[in-house]
Amino acid sequence: MLSKKSILDADSLSLEDIKLILSNADSFLEISRRDVKKVPTLRGKTVINMFFEPSTRTRTSFEIAAKRLSADIINFSPLTSSLKKGESIIDTLKTILSMKVDLIVIRHSDSGTVKMVDRFVDIPVINAGDGKYQHPTQALLDLYTIKKRFGKFEGLKVDIVGDFLDSRVARSDMNLFEKMGMDVTIVSPTMFLPEDFSGMKVKHCIDDVIEDADIVYMLRMQFERQDRKFYPSVMEYNRFLTMNMDRLGKMKPGSIVMHPGPVNRGIEITDEVMDTSGELAEKIVIEEQVTFGVAVRMAILYLILG
Amino acid sequence: MLSKKSILDADSLSLEDIKLILSNADSFLEISRRDVKKVPTLRGKTVINMFFEPSTRTRTSFEIAAKRLSADIINFSPLTSSLKKGESIIDTLKTILSMKVDLIVIRHSDSGTVKMVDRFVDIPVINAGDGKYQHPTQALLDLYTIKKRFGKFEGLKVDIVGDFLDSRVARSDMNLFEKMGMDVTIVSPTMFLPEDFSGMKVKHCIDDVIEDADIVYMLRMQFERQDRKFYPSVMEYNRFLTMNMDRLGKMKPGSIVMHPGPVNRGIEITDEVMDTSGELAEKIVIEEQVTFGVAVRMAILYLILG
Amino acid sequence: MLSKKSILDADSLSLEDIKLILSNADSFLEISRRDVKKVPTLRGKTVINMFFEPSTRTRTSFEIAAKRLSADIINFSPLTSSLKKGESIIDTLKTILSMKVDLIVIRHSDSGTVKMVDRFVDIPVINAGDGKYQHPTQALLDLYTIKKRFGKFEGLKVDIVGDFLDSRVARSDMNLFEKMGMDVTIVSPTMFLPEDFSGMKVKHCIDDVIEDADIVYMLRMQFERQDRKFYPSVMEYNRFLTMNMDRLGKMKPGSIVMHPGPVNRGIEITDEVMDTSGELAEKIVIEEQVTFGVAVRMAILYLILG
Repeated sequence: MLSKKSILDADSLSLEDIKLILSNADSFLEISRRDVKKVPTLRGKTVINMFFEPSTRTRTSFEIAAKRLSADIINFSPLTSSLKKGESIIDTLKTILSMKVDLIVIRHSDSGTVKMVDRFVDIPVINAGDGKYQHPTQALLDLYTIKKRFGKFEGLKVDIVGDFLDSRVARSDMNLFEKMGMDVTIVSPTMFLPEDFSGMKVKHCIDDVIEDADIVYMLRMQFERQDRKFYPSVMEYNRFLTMNMDRLGKMKPGSIVMHPGPVNRGIEITDEVMDTSGELAEKIVIEEQVTFGVAVRMAILYLILG
Repeated sequence: MLSKKSILDADSLSLEDIKLILSNADSFLEISRRDVKKVPTLRGKTVINMFFEPSTRTRTSFEIAAKRLSADIINFSPLTSSLKKGESIIDTLKTILSMKVDLIVIRHSDSGTVKMVDRFVDIPVINAGDGKYQHPTQALLDLYTIKKRFGKFEGLKVDIVGDFLDSRVARSDMNLFEKMGMDVTIVSPTMFLPEDFSGMKVKHCIDDVIEDADIVYMLRMQFERQDRKFYPSVMEYNRFLTMNMDRLGKMKPGSIVMHPGPVNRGIEITDEVMDTSGELAEKIVIEEQVTFGVAVRMAILYLILG
Repeated sequence: MLSKKSILDADSLSLEDIKLILSNADSFLEISRRDVKKVPTLRGKTVINMFFEPSTRTRTSFEIAAKRLSADIINFSPLTSSLKKGESIIDTLKTILSMKVDLIVIRHSDSGTVKMVDRFVDIPVINAGDGKYQHPTQALLDLYTIKKRFGKFEGLKVDIVGDFLDSRVARSDMNLFEKMGMDVTIVSPTMFLPEDFSGMKVKHCIDDVIEDADIVYMLRMQFERQDRKFYPSVMEYNRFLTMNMDRLGKMKPGSIVMHPGPVNRGIEITDEVMDTSGELAEKIVIEEQVTFGVAVRMAILYLILG
């Protein structure tokens, strides 16, 4: 059993919650590798995917996770719904609840909407990304990916590279990484940092950390979430922050490169790195993150509803 | 067994049909309250949701009803379909029928399209709302809600308040309410009434009926279905037709307020009434209507296909 | 077992593949005619429908086929997906693959994209129509329709009428029809033909073939796929290429009219022909094509994944 009914942010996950989710993920990972990728665990449960922002990875990941557990999943698409008729989100929720839904997976562009929803409803809510605030299931699958590669967390050096300020992934990851005893450094120009970053270890260039890192976590540039104009130029970004073949080659044995996807090729990561094969390709774990994402979400749905 | 293959309007439902649907709804209501909200009743049946107008409540209600009965449900979205390529609705239907679908749930903005569809196809058709004409499953769930609250229909005083002319819900409700022996009054300004309303009991202000009513049924203002400009003003609407705390407080013990949803807050019902808690909140049965809607639609699908 | 993992075009289907698919379609056709239209054959398999072009028939046909085999099917809609965020199709595929999907059904407006996708992934890919290039499952269901009507292929005279140049259906059909020993003539004005049509039997007016044809296959005018302005005029089209009652009446006993749908009424086929009843109506097999399409796609999914 998890300590809370809902998963709203990384901060409120206890160490026990995290360990429980990660250890359950193992058995659910095995299901996705079977020939018959389905168990009857959540038969007769109704899960609703409320995505107020477009998404491939996360929405489909939850949909596949729910279906492999035999739950009924309803995709609620706000664009074709009554919200067009000016219905308030609260009244929409009341409707959904009245249909006896068991769990809400929600993504919304406004930070805080998810917490408001959770306060309002009695059933569990999973935050699938809210504005610039949090994306806890991403952080959990990131942890699981690290666990599978390193077998431990304590003392691992992780560098989170890029636009920290606009990234919900960064905020959730940083919290869980530190909670698990990892040594976190942010690699960002000042304009991508919060006003007060005195409590954080900060570097401004990826070259300062690349040789020593166990994990280099590349953040997605959220062009759609930025009000400002793009950081001086792509050329400047490439000079200080981009993962390229040269930098990849300097990384130590066993170290890895992560990214929450989708990658802006040529910005966070070059085409050469994305398409490399051979020995260095093993360092790029972006696809493992996606695979583990389904397993972690199955574990979460099971622990909440099972 | 129902007396007709399809449910097209309230008028053609016999008393026996209505009683059969309402009595079956009880057992299906129980399923939605179980831990495992699923029965194998309609396994291997294919239901198609053809919604030519946006909808949250009704489409999702039918989707959940079908899934809880283990039917396969296909959401047909005309916006991304061949209708874009200029395919006629008849040719689209021929295609759907040729795929051996068992039942069509249809919503369309043109009154009469649903009847045309039903004449054209051999399989059952459920009208999920056609233009300003009818919305029979809404009327059936409204009846079920009344049955659950009052245990009877005969002699109950019901007032239908608002834009009668543009409301398919009003037309269907009025028919079923009178069929069950209820005493129906319409509360509308003349501009919201049909040209000839000589056979109807009519009042122009909600205050004329509020103290005596068993059921006050608030109609949704269908701004999107109106060609005219909005009734003098919101202020006038509020003066004569809006459910507010003062009027709610005047209603007699055991009486209820219904609305087909979604509510235009501040027009049909004030925020204060919508969000009230405590004793008066029990009078607002809008959420019960939604819950009962799933049960009534399960009963209908079962009686037609089971 | 099919000879290749994927179905990309008609050309690469061997005679044995074709015969295997057609003979399996019989048993799956029977399932769609049962009361319980569902078998557990593909339980626990995940199929993804990636439609980058709008479609009713083909997408719904695959969705119903997958559901009747108990597979989980995910509708991936590129308009509301990460492709909006500028994600490359390769990275989208990597994501999908990482979720351990078993099969991709894909439609795309660019000829060649489907082959690129197939080269990139290890799992089977079914081409559901790519640009002007191929639509092999349509050609297979067309073959199955012919088999059911004639019980043989050898020596049947088939005339493919209309815009050959822009039609992926024509290209796939012509290949399979010739492979099965049918005698194929193209009925097209020169502007609808490839530059070099020296290897093809060509006529310019439907009247030249109508009395002798076993099968008249009407191609859909792909207005959305044409860069040119429409062939002189509708009047000219009607004069040389349209199926009308007069021409239908001249066809020999047992002969049939096919069309991949949706029909542009008044262009390829007149309203009178589309809506005719009685003896001549038996010649129009457009609805049978749709019914057989589900059975053929079930057979394909079964042969690939079963």
